[in-house]
Amino acid sequence: MKLLTIDTSTSCCSVALTNGEELVSDYLVNQGKTLSSRLLDCVDLMLRGAGLAVDELDGFGVALGPGAFTGLRVGIATVKGLALAAGKPVAGFSSLAMLAMNLPWAAHPVCPMFDARKKEVYAGLYDCRDLPVPLAGDRVVAPDRLLETLDGPVIFVGEGAVRYRELIVARLGENALFAPCSANLPRASAGALLAGRAFARGEAASAALLAPVYIRPSEAELARMNRETP
Amino acid sequence: MKLLTIDTSTSCCSVALTNGEELVSDYLVNQGKTLSSRLLDCVDLMLRGAGLAVDELDGFGVALGPGAFTGLRVGIATVKGLALAAGKPVAGFSSLAMLAMNLPWAAHPVCPMFDARKKEVYAGLYDCRDLPVPLAGDRVVAPDRLLETLDGPVIFVGEGAVRYRELIVARLGENALFAPCSANLPRASAGALLAGRAFARGEAASAALLAPVYIRPSEAELARMNRETP
Repeated sequence: MKLLTIDTSTSCCSVALTNGEELVSDYLVNQGKTLSSRLLDCVDLMLRGAGLAVDELDGFGVALGPGAFTGLRVGIATVKGLALAAGKPVAGFSSLAMLAMNLPWAAHPVCPMFDARKKEVYAGLYDCRDLPVPLAGDRVVAPDRLLETLDGPVIFVGEGAVRYRELIVARLGENALFAPCSANLPRASAGALLAGRAFARGEAASAALLAPVYIRPSEAELARMNRETP
Repeated sequence: MKLLTIDTSTSCCSVALTNGEELVSDYLVNQGKTLSSRLLDCVDLMLRGAGLAVDELDGFGVALGPGAFTGLRVGIATVKGLALAAGKPVAGFSSLAMLAMNLPWAAHPVCPMFDARKKEVYAGLYDCRDLPVPLAGDRVVAPDRLLETLDGPVIFVGEGAVRYRELIVARLGENALFAPCSANLPRASAGALLAGRAFARGEAASAALLAPVYIRPSEAELARMNRETP
């Protein structure tokens, strides 16, 4: 099964082409400001490199969130466009589970963490085996409150963990372990595996049904709710 | 420090651009036959994307082996050319250590494994923390003999582990664990971290001194040795 998988849940954008369990190619660009202009270039380059047309793919995978609102919208809109045009199904997956996959078979629970601004992080907690198993739900939370809930050694990964490293070490001491920097960025190629499993479970759906998982309401939604509250 | 790192030790080719501890971009293409034509395209695309000229880099990293002879030669020759032209130093690293880095903080020893043909594998054994620590030297060995030396749970990673999976399970049973397929390919972005540490230790050198680590002699060398043996 040929899958094209996209992740844009942080300022880093990545695209992966997989054929069953085989990774054919993967591009990651960590230069946020050019995301929208780069994403389709990456997709085009990747498909041309593999000698594939969009309608020769069997489906698409995409990170649904949590993450940066604009980034998620761009990635999901792009996948919706491609999938609707090609008439192929899409499987979404958690951006945080994808990030946790950078530490397969980790010795301790893995806490993937994106910076959510407003002094909060998007965080999860996973038991990482060959695929990650959630130990707690993905959430948006102040780092201090998150750290209060953690007991024993935890491996932190992601740019949220980089941003709050001092605080994490101050609270957890020797129980705070950190992924190497090469593992701190989410990768569509890890997400492709999650998408593939969703396809295998029959959970892929039409692109029209695809919706981002923001966890917290966007500024626009908050403003609307405020206007509508009498 | 801006580093361009290249890995061509298997049929999969990858290039990474890093700035200190930050990964700027990384491309991985798993389509061996087009390696030589693709590698410089990838480098060019990556540098143009980052708005960098070759001589604005501070140095280069390259996987020295073990691995496919032709692949290693192409990658090392390319890095030599770039580094000599730009007058910048190069740091090499073990291809197997780079592959082990796909399992940071793994719960058990990690055995990275490339297929070495002739019914042998290139294999190492690493204690994976934030960076891998070798528990045994990288070597070329028949899989059966390698497995005799392993005791307790081991996590196998790489296309060698994919190729010999049945044998590994037959010998080690429940002690045989396998990396998810998204972790099976070596990544220059992981190697970049090894190259960065080598630069920090003052181990980078002029490109002229760079030599591949084949571990076993090439067919051409074997033929020459046979001719020269009286």
